[in-house]
Amino acid sequence: MTGRDGGAELSRDPAAPVVILVRPQLAENVGSAARAMANGGLFDLRLVAPRDGWPQDRAWRSASGADRILENVRVFGTVAEATADLHRVLATCPRPRHIIKPVMTARGAAAEMRVCAAGGLRCGVLFGPERAGLDNDDMAAADALVRYPLNPEFMSLNLAQAVMIVAYEWWMAADDTPASRLMTNETEIATKGELDNFLSHLTRELDESGFLRNAQKRPGMVRNIRHLFQRGQVTEQELRTLHGMITELARGRHMRRPASAGPVVAPREG
Amino acid sequence: MTGRDGGAELSRDPAAPVVILVRPQLAENVGSAARAMANGGLFDLRLVAPRDGWPQDRAWRSASGADRILENVRVFGTVAEATADLHRVLATCPRPRHIIKPVMTARGAAAEMRVCAAGGLRCGVLFGPERAGLDNDDMAAADALVRYPLNPEFMSLNLAQAVMIVAYEWWMAADDTPASRLMTNETEIATKGELDNFLSHLTRELDESGFLRNAQKRPGMVRNIRHLFQRGQVTEQELRTLHGMITELARGRHMRRPASAGPVVAPREG
Repeated sequence: MTGRDGGAELSRDPAAPVVILVRPQLAENVGSAARAMANGGLFDLRLVAPRDGWPQDRAWRSASGADRILENVRVFGTVAEATADLHRVLATCPRPRHIIKPVMTARGAAAEMRVCAAGGLRCGVLFGPERAGLDNDDMAAADALVRYPLNPEFMSLNLAQAVMIVAYEWWMAADDTPASRLMTNETEIATKGELDNFLSHLTRELDESGFLRNAQKRPGMVRNIRHLFQRGQVTEQELRTLHGMITELARGRHMRRPASAGPVVAPREG
Repeated sequence: MTGRDGGAELSRDPAAPVVILVRPQLAENVGSAARAMANGGLFDLRLVAPRDGWPQDRAWRSASGADRILENVRVFGTVAEATADLHRVLATCPRPRHIIKPVMTARGAAAEMRVCAAGGLRCGVLFGPERAGLDNDDMAAADALVRYPLNPEFMSLNLAQAVMIVAYEWWMAADDTPASRLMTNETEIATKGELDNFLSHLTRELDESGFLRNAQKRPGMVRNIRHLFQRGQVTEQELRTLHGMITELARGRHMRRPASAGPVVAPREG
């Protein structure tokens, strides 16, 4: 979406979960995973037996500036070593296996990890190699599995995408942005009084122009116009623009007759 | 995570939102976006003025088998043409702009698009070019903006990641997977009666071994053992294993004395 955040000063939240990539194959994916971690406020990245060794330039090239995360990567020989200081370990597992284990959605896992973190427990999430995923011994090292609800017709999930979803849900679990709100910048939503003032102006000009000449339909028409403008959460600035538009549109008629004249009777429509 | 779902038979949900990539630069990103769409059950992909033209082999190589989506891509010259048949258009916009428009989270947008879809309205989501994002004219063509709550220290979001989050939230908005559940496969969680039967077996052997010889502490110790096993949601199969373990561990003591003998008095610990 946007350019790289070159060498961003990423802050390290000591309570945030550790991401553990188990036997990752492509260094590009390690870099992309670091980028996804940065998006979600994760920092601590660990690698277990990366296929091509570590460090790898290609990781930095795909990290879009999440360099701090890559600089702080720690490499371990086994899952047991990589998780030895953690209190709770979750394992991402896209397909069901024959094991008895709690299974969580990514959202459920994020909520639980927030609770653990608040209680001073360190959590980690295991992600398997690109092709094969975690093996049975890897999963036995975990307290619970994480399985994303996704289209069962197409489960093939890129490693960085898998990390992205955990990072995104971790961030969302503590985010209180309203689901929808009107962005107004410098201006403010108009008050009902200001809106009413505009609707009076509009109705007066529509009356004078003859648009509302059908007395029987007039109340419903005025109400429908009001409904339209009520729906739009009009701002003060927009109301000023609308006042100006109405004034300009009506100017020609005002100039053709004395200011004191009554409503113009418009010709009937063909 | 897993290999490609080669040429998966992706079903087309006519109510699902359209993804519109505006002036995409890299064909690889179009392919990765298609893969992310498939993960979330989206199908209809449209391109506005792709920089390198269309089709491009590189897109197919990064789509991991989401070929049906790429085969059905439609290319348009302008955003207006690409959205002409849609009822509601959202624009992803990672950074605030000076426009007055509703701003939604991805989750809020997914919920709203589900409501629109249920009402027979077609929705679309605009994604901007990799580097620059959507321009002001693109955003004026949208009813509302979508901005993901993500780490403000690192907003650089890959195009396919941006599509992934919308696709994931679209899927989640209709998903009812419980946040956490125990996967038990063939076996079942043991009943309280079965668990009690095991705890009686264990307590009897612990009494006989002398482990519970401190009469004052015994009730608390038995209760704590019960708490541990209650917490684990033990399955029937695991209970059978535990019964076997206790029986085998106690076998030596049973063999060294007549079956009718009372509890063994263990030597005091040093």
